[in-house]
Amino acid sequence: MNGIDLAVSTVIFALRPDADDRLVLSIPLVRRTREPFEGHWALPGGGADAAESLDATAARTLEETTGLTPAYLEQLYCFGEPDRSPSGRVVSIVYWALVRGDEAEQATIDENVAWFPADELPRLAFDHNLIVDYALWRLRNKLEYSRIAHAFLGETFTLTALRQVHEIVLQRPLDPANFRRQIEASRAVVPTGEHVTGGRHRPPRLYRYDATVDLVDRGPLTPAGIR
Amino acid sequence: MNGIDLAVSTVIFALRPDADDRLVLSIPLVRRTREPFEGHWALPGGGADAAESLDATAARTLEETTGLTPAYLEQLYCFGEPDRSPSGRVVSIVYWALVRGDEAEQATIDENVAWFPADELPRLAFDHNLIVDYALWRLRNKLEYSRIAHAFLGETFTLTALRQVHEIVLQRPLDPANFRRQIEASRAVVPTGEHVTGGRHRPPRLYRYDATVDLVDRGPLTPAGIR
Repeated sequence: MNGIDLAVSTVIFALRPDADDRLVLSIPLVRRTREPFEGHWALPGGGADAAESLDATAARTLEETTGLTPAYLEQLYCFGEPDRSPSGRVVSIVYWALVRGDEAEQATIDENVAWFPADELPRLAFDHNLIVDYALWRLRNKLEYSRIAHAFLGETFTLTALRQVHEIVLQRPLDPANFRRQIEASRAVVPTGEHVTGGRHRPPRLYRYDATVDLVDRGPLTPAGIR
Repeated sequence: MNGIDLAVSTVIFALRPDADDRLVLSIPLVRRTREPFEGHWALPGGGADAAESLDATAARTLEETTGLTPAYLEQLYCFGEPDRSPSGRVVSIVYWALVRGDEAEQATIDENVAWFPADELPRLAFDHNLIVDYALWRLRNKLEYSRIAHAFLGETFTLTALRQVHEIVLQRPLDPANFRRQIEASRAVVPTGEHVTGGRHRPPRLYRYDATVDLVDRGPLTPAGIR
């Protein structure tokens, strides 16, 4: 209407095994099949639809391009520099989500959809490298003071698994005893009373978060509740 | 282009004296002079311009409607529910800023521009009440763990003034000794070595923040640097 196209893109983070079976912070990308940036990899997404909420457009375009259906996508930031697309003015509302490994495996993978290590991306279409950099920075920042690491894990987990998530995302080793003290002091994590099953002499205890905490608490905004 | 209009709106927070000379958390509103919502109060803003960055549109439309020119506006959230405007689909990128009392006094006040107590608003145009509620929630949340209260004050301030800002925004009294301990422990505030001038027997010490901290740290995004 004012000569501006509105698009929605999504950054999905998951921990996925690489060729050496080491977990790597990864995002799914889609290869563009038309200009501009034909052949370049880009974030999943698509044009906004006048009849649909932005949240719904984010979920729909993500599913259409990758087959992924995270329970909840949250708004990250709106990117709107005048020169970010060579084919005219496009403002992109960017959503993000963290998904567990088993959810990530539901993605449709073909020659035009693939997972990439989030820290080793090729030159992406548009300003999508900047968008991923911003999402990575927000993720690492939130990990330090918030309770989002569990989104990469199942409902219950060991403290060792939780520490490994922090180590992979932050890209540095953490002292196990210090990590345990900090997590226990934060009271974000509570023991379930259960232990890892199996024949071990001292099976590790299982923990869970005491409440569902979203990536970004939206306060008075109603949750998207897309599906 | 896809049948969606893009607009920019701004929430400006300041502490301003009421009729009894008590400081109140306040925002400037603009009365609409055309449909939809003619005669209703609304957030300052306007339509996006295809040749202008969103940051620049936010600054320009704020100045055009209110005369306010905060040094830095930050993106708050993007509101895009399909039914938020009765005259067609409008997606609004919302910016926010905190300004000092002396900056707030630069606003053009006439019959169509006025300051309102942020917690006692009339029914605003569109979903602007929801937008203000969300901005208030974010402001109160950030005040608890961040270092943003100084944006309401000058470069140096007393701890009493800083505590009063917190009390006004959070709408509850804070214990002076506890507040002092928490602020000193956070190391966000450092004594300047100066004292309030005047003939008092024990003039209060002046403090400053040890760095400029924005409402929202934008990480890899370059600061708007609008003016």
